[in-house]
Amino acid sequence: MEVAHAARKAANSLKTATNDQRTAALKAIHDRLRDDKDKILEANRLDLELAESADLSPALIKRLDLTRPGKFDSMLQGVLDVAALDDPAGHISLSRHLDNGLDLYRVTCPVGVLLVIFEARPEVIANIGALAIKSGNAAILKGGKESENTFKVMTELLQQALARTVIPHDALQLIGSREQVAELLRLDEYIDMVIPRGSKELVRSIKRNTSIPVLGHADGLCSLYVDAEADPEMAANIAVDAKTDYPAACNAVETLLIHSAAVEKCLVHVVSALLDAKVKVKVEPSLLSFLHEKLPTETDIVEASPEDFNTEFLSLTIAVREVSGWQAAVDHINEHGSHHTDCIITNNEQTASKFIRAVGSAGVYWNASTRFADGFRYGFGAEVGISTNKLHARGPVGLDGLMSYQYILKGHGQVASSYLGSGGARAYKHEDF
Amino acid sequence: MEVAHAARKAANSLKTATNDQRTAALKAIHDRLRDDKDKILEANRLDLELAESADLSPALIKRLDLTRPGKFDSMLQGVLDVAALDDPAGHISLSRHLDNGLDLYRVTCPVGVLLVIFEARPEVIANIGALAIKSGNAAILKGGKESENTFKVMTELLQQALARTVIPHDALQLIGSREQVAELLRLDEYIDMVIPRGSKELVRSIKRNTSIPVLGHADGLCSLYVDAEADPEMAANIAVDAKTDYPAACNAVETLLIHSAAVEKCLVHVVSALLDAKVKVKVEPSLLSFLHEKLPTETDIVEASPEDFNTEFLSLTIAVREVSGWQAAVDHINEHGSHHTDCIITNNEQTASKFIRAVGSAGVYWNASTRFADGFRYGFGAEVGISTNKLHARGPVGLDGLMSYQYILKGHGQVASSYLGSGGARAYKHEDF
Repeated sequence: MEVAHAARKAANSLKTATNDQRTAALKAIHDRLRDDKDKILEANRLDLELAESADLSPALIKRLDLTRPGKFDSMLQGVLDVAALDDPAGHISLSRHLDNGLDLYRVTCPVGVLLVIFEARPEVIANIGALAIKSGNAAILKGGKESENTFKVMTELLQQALARTVIPHDALQLIGSREQVAELLRLDEYIDMVIPRGSKELVRSIKRNTSIPVLGHADGLCSLYVDAEADPEMAANIAVDAKTDYPAACNAVETLLIHSAAVEKCLVHVVSALLDAKVKVKVEPSLLSFLHEKLPTETDIVEASPEDFNTEFLSLTIAVREVSGWQAAVDHINEHGSHHTDCIITNNEQTASKFIRAVGSAGVYWNASTRFADGFRYGFGAEVGISTNKLHARGPVGLDGLMSYQYILKGHGQVASSYLGSGGARAYKHEDF
Repeated sequence: MEVAHAARKAANSLKTATNDQRTAALKAIHDRLRDDKDKILEANRLDLELAESADLSPALIKRLDLTRPGKFDSMLQGVLDVAALDDPAGHISLSRHLDNGLDLYRVTCPVGVLLVIFEARPEVIANIGALAIKSGNAAILKGGKESENTFKVMTELLQQALARTVIPHDALQLIGSREQVAELLRLDEYIDMVIPRGSKELVRSIKRNTSIPVLGHADGLCSLYVDAEADPEMAANIAVDAKTDYPAACNAVETLLIHSAAVEKCLVHVVSALLDAKVKVKVEPSLLSFLHEKLPTETDIVEASPEDFNTEFLSLTIAVREVSGWQAAVDHINEHGSHHTDCIITNNEQTASKFIRAVGSAGVYWNASTRFADGFRYGFGAEVGISTNKLHARGPVGLDGLMSYQYILKGHGQVASSYLGSGGARAYKHEDF
């Protein structure tokens, strides 16, 4: 496939570009987008008209609209922000004398070719394009079809900007159809990483249909465990924040586990706070009569089904279950959760340590809202995505998630057969420097 | 599948074990293998008899034989060596105040459940079992069928040893059939990583048939580029070592690229040295008449076909091609190589830098034999395998290739909505400590 071949070629060239060259390319992109704002907004208007005539929801149409106050400028600023980040390439994480004049280095380098599939917000293409170039990776881009016209114009501008720099313009290419995505997913010799941003159905379908590593997460089923020694006020605050701050986010909480010994002390307090925040509370049968007795007038307390504990509601709904202790909470989380981010609320440091050690998720929190699971909140400067993979990048992923590494060995003609283990007499020194 | 379920349960428990507990388990394994040596050798004898009656090659039978001098003891010592390695878990690679009393840590932890498929050398099961337990991972083991009886007895002993420790005995389980492997490869919820050690056909077939991350390499097509400014003596020495030290190894060299300007100065010297070392030299047509003229009596210089430059010979054969310079060498390597380990021989540091920057392989060497690409030579203490993946572990992989990481956030009840970006007024501090 031509696109993949061109991307690989561009990646090979881009890998040799210096940080100054990559940063200059981002400035060129910034300037070109700024100077051709009218052209972009014209395409955006066309997409908006098509969206309106297709009767898309006002919320979606709003997300497509690049003319909203501040939107375009913040997109431009985003490109400059990425340009200003530290160079993620060339970091040395190991330097070791294997012997006199035989030095080993482990050095970060770009992954190569990314296939990024993203939603229809038009500003995203500038952000992803900037992240790819800054990290020295070529990217094949597939955006949501609702912004098709905007994406086309913006990609042309990105490529025109690159054409005036030393970065090959094929470093950023747009594809239009799902068939092209399906074809690319088979080309594991050309594509090094797939980054799907979008619905869990999209992510799952991609994971099923490719042997290329996929960076991302399909699910965000986060749990909050309220321990016997939890502070009721803290439990209520964190539960409300984790559930309601942004219910559709992957780091929102979906399941509340409560220690039997905390039911009396905490549950009514936590549930009342959730109800005040308009949350529907689904509780397992054993807690239902207790809560109905304590809060007899509440109609948003209903019985949970077993399936509710495997459900990412993505809405103002939470499932509540009683557990016998931290180990039972951990067992529940390791079995039912999606290994994204889970939290214990307790004043007992030992219990917290045991919980942290035992939970297998990308993020394990003690007395803090799961909503902190985010690249910007972690201080990564940029967020590529949130990964629930266990290998390579995990949790919120910054620019370094787009990096691989190479071993570089610099010698003076040494051969292995001179050394112990291959018939020779010399011993390796293995001295780090 | 019962095996996978039991492994996951064991992994969840093993993750919480301390280094002392894991190390003690390895000592228990060591002692049990030592004390039941007779039982193991009896099973080994049975395998050897079956191998002989099946007319297996003497070389293979030799590899199966645990009674060879020093073999059993070095297997036992290997378990103790792994036990003595630094704990790979709990390393903190990031610690950051997000705010006062809100501290983020990135900490290494085990990957979880490994499926390891390995050759028939019986001592390998002890080594892999030790690496898994030391790193806190559960492992499902499938060894070559030629050592079936030995593996069965040894696994029983491994499990008996674990049963007397706090490590669950299901942390190491043996499976016997390829059908079981095929089934496990589908269970990506239970298996976190597959490590196939064996033929390239095995590795390729596994990569094709699973969405679980695979650690390893199918191919080792390494190249040596002799630059215009190469020292002929060094080029000859490195070529001979890289080709002949262990021709069946993945880090042996298969292709020799030579700068046009070095043909006159270096080629005869290098080729003569290779021929002296019994190497068959396949050269592209443009070089054939030159070499036949210079070395008229040599019969082991033959014409190379285009396919020879995509071939991992794994024998005393090398393919030779002329290139116009370092960029052409890089282009050849990036297209035809397997991204394992490639080398430039030159006295020009600038050329070396350009080559190193442009080659996309796991290892890029300057004036050193590709045979150094090995975990022990790199000083990793143990080698899990050599990876040509670009994500997660790359190149020779030590114990840390079996590790993932988690983000741990310790707070005092903080919620995201208090902070800038989620409606609040507080700014993040993002101070590393």
